[in-house]
Amino acid sequence: MDDKTRTDAIHRLKSVAGHVNGIVRMLEDDRYCIDVIKQIQATQTALSRVSEGILDSHLRTCVTTAIQDADRQERERMLDEITEVFRFTGKG
Amino acid sequence: MDDKTRTDAIHRLKSVAGHVNGIVRMLEDDRYCIDVIKQIQATQTALSRVSEGILDSHLRTCVTTAIQDADRQERERMLDEITEVFRFTGKG
Amino acid sequence: MDDKTRTDAIHRLKSVAGHVNGIVRMLEDDRYCIDVIKQIQATQTALSRVSEGILDSHLRTCVTTAIQDADRQERERMLDEITEVFRFTGKG
Amino acid sequence: MDDKTRTDAIHRLKSVAGHVNGIVRMLEDDRYCIDVIKQIQATQTALSRVSEGILDSHLRTCVTTAIQDADRQERERMLDEITEVFRFTGKG
Repeated sequence: MDDKTRTDAIHRLKSVAGHVNGIVRMLEDDRYCIDVIKQIQATQTALSRVSEGILDSHLRTCVTTAIQDADRQERERMLDEITEVFRFTGKG
Repeated sequence: MDDKTRTDAIHRLKSVAGHVNGIVRMLEDDRYCIDVIKQIQATQTALSRVSEGILDSHLRTCVTTAIQDADRQERERMLDEITEVFRFTGKG
Repeated sequence: MDDKTRTDAIHRLKSVAGHVNGIVRMLEDDRYCIDVIKQIQATQTALSRVSEGILDSHLRTCVTTAIQDADRQERERMLDEITEVFRFTGKG
Repeated sequence: MDDKTRTDAIHRLKSVAGHVNGIVRMLEDDRYCIDVIKQIQATQTALSRVSEGILDSHLRTCVTTAIQDADRQERERMLDEITEVFRFTGKG
């Protein structure tokens, strides 16, 4: 992963952690269920954005290097991993 | 939302916030991209579980009460909200 | 489910079936992988729209009636089902 | 895409089209809403499996070749596409 992606991901994840703690306070204040669910969904969207940034960087750095240089077995392993994280998102 | 659901949701969300902070440390330690993405996906699953618990409780308390007692407009509003949070999940 | 929702759902599903058969032809014509995947994703979005319409109608008809009239056990069963279809969407 | 993947995808998509037509009949027979929604969700899962198979093959054929042989611009375009189809799945 390149430095810019890592810095950006750290920044976004700290923001998500803060958001989640804010939702804890909403629950402690007995806020309306649907408002809480919408905030949870917003954090899930934010987390998807982080994953996408990391995957994008991973493809451009590690995967590109592996396809250019690594042996077949290592290359296959990396491509399997991409399919695996893609599969997660379509579990539904 | 009933007390048990709220307590359970608070507990799970605090655990998610801790998990997200752990992912920040993974990034700071320059851990492997795919391992990071898998941890992010795990937090998204945990968040879905929290939403489901809250929705379930919401249906059994607020929505049931509204359908039994509230006026038509209020009832419609609550049912619209359910469809809206369901729609979010199928945006893909 | 009300008649308008059913008619609309039938119309949309027939369109989805046609779309899926069109994707079969894309594959037979050896069209570009990513274009095929995007068309598949478009059919998934269309299917989500159908589910949302049916759920919305279900809440306004069957569920509302059950909450107003049915015994506790029947009511619980219907609310469990809502949570179950919601859970499906958050499997990821 | 390799031949085995294409043949498999065509087979699965034809089965999905048949499944969707079966859901049309369920609606015409006025079957229970939740049963219809569950069948729709089953077709969405089946479609995700097809996308995953195609993506997996795409990575191993087109993308691998592009990374080994194509110019930078073509390579970037292909990696952008992967991120784009991944992003779709995390729209929620």
